[in-house]
Order: sequence, then C-alpha cells, then structure tokens
Amino acid sequence: MANQSYLKRVNQRRVMLAVRESGAQSRSAIADQLALDRKSMTNLANELIAEGWLCESGTVSSQRGRPGTLLELDRSRHLFLGLHLSENAANAVLINLHGQILERDQRSFDLPAKLPQLRWALREVYLPLRRLAGDRLQAIGLAVPGILDFASGTMLHSVNLQALDGVELRSLLPSDLPAELYLEESSRAKALAELWFGIGQGRSSFVSIDLGIGIGAGIVIGKRLQGGAFAGEIGHVLIEPGGRLCACGHRGCLEAYLSEHVLCQELSQALQQPLTSLEQVQSLNPAAEAILQQAGYFLGRGLAALVNILCPPLLVLHGNLTRFQQHLFPAMERGLSDAALSSCRSRVEVRISAFGSEAAALGAAAAPLENVFLG
Amino acid sequence: MANQSYLKRVNQRRVMLAVRESGAQSRSAIADQLALDRKSMTNLANELIAEGWLCESGTVSSQRGRPGTLLELDRSRHLFLGLHLSENAANAVLINLHGQILERDQRSFDLPAKLPQLRWALREVYLPLRRLAGDRLQAIGLAVPGILDFASGTMLHSVNLQALDGVELRSLLPSDLPAELYLEESSRAKALAELWFGIGQGRSSFVSIDLGIGIGAGIVIGKRLQGGAFAGEIGHVLIEPGGRLCACGHRGCLEAYLSEHVLCQELSQALQQPLTSLEQVQSLNPAAEAILQQAGYFLGRGLAALVNILCPPLLVLHGNLTRFQQHLFPAMERGLSDAALSSCRSRVEVRISAFGSEAAALGAAAAPLENVFLG
Repeated sequence: MANQSYLKRVNQRRVMLAVRESGAQSRSAIADQLALDRKSMTNLANELIAEGWLCESGTVSSQRGRPGTLLELDRSRHLFLGLHLSENAANAVLINLHGQILERDQRSFDLPAKLPQLRWALREVYLPLRRLAGDRLQAIGLAVPGILDFASGTMLHSVNLQALDGVELRSLLPSDLPAELYLEESSRAKALAELWFGIGQGRSSFVSIDLGIGIGAGIVIGKRLQGGAFAGEIGHVLIEPGGRLCACGHRGCLEAYLSEHVLCQELSQALQQPLTSLEQVQSLNPAAEAILQQAGYFLGRGLAALVNILCPPLLVLHGNLTRFQQHLFPAMERGLSDAALSSCRSRVEVRISAFGSEAAALGAAAAPLENVFLG
Repeated sequence: MANQSYLKRVNQRRVMLAVRESGAQSRSAIADQLALDRKSMTNLANELIAEGWLCESGTVSSQRGRPGTLLELDRSRHLFLGLHLSENAANAVLINLHGQILERDQRSFDLPAKLPQLRWALREVYLPLRRLAGDRLQAIGLAVPGILDFASGTMLHSVNLQALDGVELRSLLPSDLPAELYLEESSRAKALAELWFGIGQGRSSFVSIDLGIGIGAGIVIGKRLQGGAFAGEIGHVLIEPGGRLCACGHRGCLEAYLSEHVLCQELSQALQQPLTSLEQVQSLNPAAEAILQQAGYFLGRGLAALVNILCPPLLVLHGNLTRFQQHLFPAMERGLSDAALSSCRSRVEVRISAFGSEAAALGAAAAPLENVFLG
C-alpha cells in the first residue's frame, strides 16, 4: 500500500525538520513533539542514522533516571556543493547539513566574460570540492543571474552575463556529474541562503533583495521560495515615471538608479576615482553622500511596492551597496514613508545579510534542502 | 498512535479534493489516481458518505463488466453561509459544496453607514438563510473591507466603512451562531470566490484585484490565499510621485486615481450627471472616454508592480470599473507595456470576474473550504 511508504517519508522529514529547527534532542522529546509513538520513533531514528541523516551526539539527563541520547543532523555524511557564477567571478562552497562551509573557492574573471572563461572558472572551483566531497556528495547546486527556463535548464536571458544567453547550464560543468544538479537564479539563491542558514531561519515568510549590478528579489512564503522563474523582478518596478532609461528598455526602473554599475559611474565622478565595484570606495565626500542618499530614497520607493503588495515581515538586503547603510537607511526610510502604507511598513523589519559574496553559492548548495526536509 | 488518524484525515481530504477537481468518479478511479489500495478506498468512501461529504451519483459502465458507482460531492448535506458588508449593502449567499447558490439576499443602506444600520442589514440577510440551512449549516463566513486583526477578530481600520473601526466583528451577528465563524477581508474574499468557484479554479497561483471604492488584492499561491492581513494593498502602490493626495495621506497612490468615488466625481462632470456608482453610467462621451482611458493607463502601471514582483500567471479583475473594458483595457495594456518587464508581462493573463456584486459573499462562504479540502 502506497500509504505506508508515503507516511514513512512524511515522518522521516518531520523528524529531520524537528531536529533541524529545535537542535539536538532526545528520541522521546522528538516523539512527544510530533505525536509519534515510541516504536515508530525508534524505527525512524534507526533508519535515519543508518542513512547518514542523523547521528547520536552525547547524552542528556532525563527525569526518568536513564540518560537519553541526543540526536542531531549528521555533520559528515551528506555534503552539498554550491556554485555561483556572478558577473566577474565563480564561487564555490562545500557545506554539510548544518550549513557549515567545509571548503570554499573563488576564481575572478574580467567583464564582460565569454563562455570559455565562465566554463573555465566554474570548473576550477568545482573540481577540487567535488574531489574533497567524494561519495559524501549528496547534490550540486548552480546559481546564475538571469531568467532561467527551469524545465529545460536553459538560460533564456541574462542581462548581466550575456554569454549565458541560450546556454544549457549543465553544459558548463563536466558531463560526469556525481550527483543531481539543482539550478537556481542567483538573486533567488541568496534568499535560499537566508532561509536555510541566515536571517530567514525559522521565519515563515520574508523577501531577500539582491542589490548588485542587477537588482532582483527572492520571495519566501511558507518556508519555500515562491513565484516561479519570472518573479522577483523588483529592479524593474517603476519608481520615476519618464525617468532614466533602463537596460530593459523602459524609463524610470529602480535598477536604472540603483545598479552597482550606475552608482559606480556616479561615485567615480563625485570621488574623482575610477570605480568598477562599490567595494573599491575608500571614503566619501558630500557629493558622494548625496548620491547614496538619493539611491537610498529610490530604494525605499521600490521596496514600498513590495511592502504594499506582500507586506513581508522581513526584508533582507544583499550587495555591496549595503556597506553604506549609514547613508542609505535614513533615506530609504523616507522613501518607504512616502510610498508604503504605514500599517504595512510598520510590520516590516529590514536587515542586512551577513553572507557577503558567498551568499549565492551558499544558496545554491541549499537548493536541494527543500527536497531533503520538506519534500 | 497519532499517525493513523493523521493519515486518515490526509487521505479523506485527498479523496474529497480528487472528486472536487476531477468531477464524479468511481471508487476505483479515485483509488488509482491516489495510489490507495481498494480496502482503504472503500473505508474512506463509506466514512465520507456517512458524514455527508460524498454521495453516490449514478453508475458508469466498466470494462470489467460490473458497472461502477460514481462518487461526487454531496450537494445537500453541508451548506456554507457567506456574508459581505460593503460600503452600501449587506449581501448573503447560501451555497453547497459545489458552490451552487441555494439562496441569496441583499439589503442596501445609505453612505456613510452607522454601526446600527450595518448590524441591522447584516442580520436581515443572515437570519432567513440561517433558518433555511438549519442543521445542514457547516460554517459561516463574513467579509468586510479594511484591515483586520485576525487573532482577535477585530477591525483595526476600515477606510471605507469607518463605523467598523475597532469593532469586534462577531458582535455584528446574533450571539447564538449555530456554526463556526470565519472572517475575511472583502478583497481577499473575492480571491477566494475565484479560487474555489471562479476563474481561479484549478489554477495554482493568481491574483484577484478588487477595483471598488477601495482597491485591494487577494494573492493566491499554491492554491491558498497568502500574505497575511496586511498584504494586497495594491491601491497604495505609488504610480505618480508627487501626484494626487490619497485618503491614506500619501500622494500619487493608485487608489487616488482609480477609486470608484474619484472616478464618479470625474465622470459626473464629464457626463453632466450626478453619479455615486459606476453602475449608473448609461452612455459615454469623448471626455468620459478620456477619463476611463487615463484610469486604464494608471491601472496598468499599478498592475505592473505586481507583475514584476510576483509574475502571477493570472490576474482577475473585480468591480464596476470592469464594465468599461472596451476603453479600459487598451490603455491598461499601454500602462503595463511602459512599466512591466516584457518577459513577465507576456506570461500574465488578465480576465474579468463573472461574479459581480456577490463575489465577496461567495468568497466568505468559501473561506471554510481550505479547511475542508486542504487541511
């Protein structure tokens, strides 16, 4: 009967999720929490230990005398390899079920990159981590910026990595992949990093905003990344009708004002220093501060649309622009105040990601976890 | 063991959902579809028939000789009473599991209504339907416009029905309610009507837009209404920075241009006819057409934010404004073209609701169905 295997799968995932969300616990505590009987719990735990998902980790004293053994997620058996191609670098991380990074690597390349460069950089970071993982490798995730056709695994259009247009993404990697490959868009992958290992942990809903050369969002609802391949294009929300021309062909998009490219150009002038990344900014002058304040205000206006429509309890911001929080945030607050309904705005917390340039690779490594824990 | 009752509940709902989504079916067809064994299926069907959720409805010839009996949702046993307080009327519908309206009622009142009027109108439409339903009444739904605190069942703030501000909504009805009461915001309720009985049936995701005196949205993702009490405030998306003052205190909100109040004022002038509802418009002149085209353009701009952020495959429009589709839609398309990323826009279908003024009452009656079918 299909029921029993279905039920077993459901319960295995419930047990793993309970251990993940509440930390190391005794079998009886988990059984109580999930209303499982002891025999079922014993069987489930034995199977999950044998399969390398759980392990025993020390003991805890019990009121009933006999000390209980704690179960936690196994740190060593199942590893996940996350890859990220950005506009100028390939990043890779190898993580375990706890989200601990066991190994990392990075290769930079020049803008605009051609396909052979991308493939070279990706393989350079992939191969050593794959070797290190060996047969512990459970799955591989690859995050790339652009609009993906998930069904065929092809990049439909990447504004900022045009060499990928029309490319079947699996072809970027060696053909002898030792584990299943998960594809994800990089702004959405950053949301996955927050959901599984970052500020979004334990939160049911939030939106992660990627403030980079492109500006995108990953929308998490009910602990799952939502919206399909075409959602999250907050960079193309209209914030200034008839305003600046955007790369998309429209006028007045958020991205036309807030792209890292655009801000680097503006700040290069203000600081009399040629900039290709906001990381290169050493110090600010009043003209540069005014540019960042203007950017903050427009960011607030763009986020206001999101706040009015979804009212997510949490927004997590990514990208080099967040380095200038001190100048950005007060102006962003003014933009939000001008354009978000106050009853919505007051319910939204805004925070900055702690993951820096590894966020998307970490999110790519986390892409398989929905299957592992939620099914 | 909690498992078995959990599994039974899950399977009962799977059976009911399969019958709902695929129509009347034989036990064996359902069992095949859900990978249930025949014995479990027989037990589940017997229980669901005994409880009045399913009934037998004719036979179908089977390849194996013996004719199969079809199961369908029982039309008579479980009824749902939906109530809606709008700015100027109380509506009620009594429906069965098929969404068929067995009885309906309406009472109008003058704007702006005071609390005793609202209570009177609501009880007038509620009591006869409650009597008619008798002990077949499964649940009651009440939809009201505004921002609800679902936890306490209190209206926090209703811009357009200010008499409800701070009111515990249960107090509007007699205290001897014969069934559980479900509360819903009226724009969100219209989305539920589409989800269960309208254009949204069988669709996993869509957004329903309520173009009335207030402008709101109900967001359906994964066949469930999403976003919490404060989401869907698309009426307060900024479409014209520094533009018209809105009732919310901001300038340039969609609602400041598209509220039925505002459009009635504008059209009254253009048509030299005092209007309080767009239903009263008999014919148009060029000035009125220009007003509707402008409204359509701004609607397109407002919807563009939704399209860029969520890219829902379907938008369903409600409200009297949709009567002017001929003038509205071409201009709306221009607004969408100017402000929505074309790769997102091209994936979104826009349709008009067929439910008219009963949409929110129908949605209120449908509010309990998520519990019945999805758990």
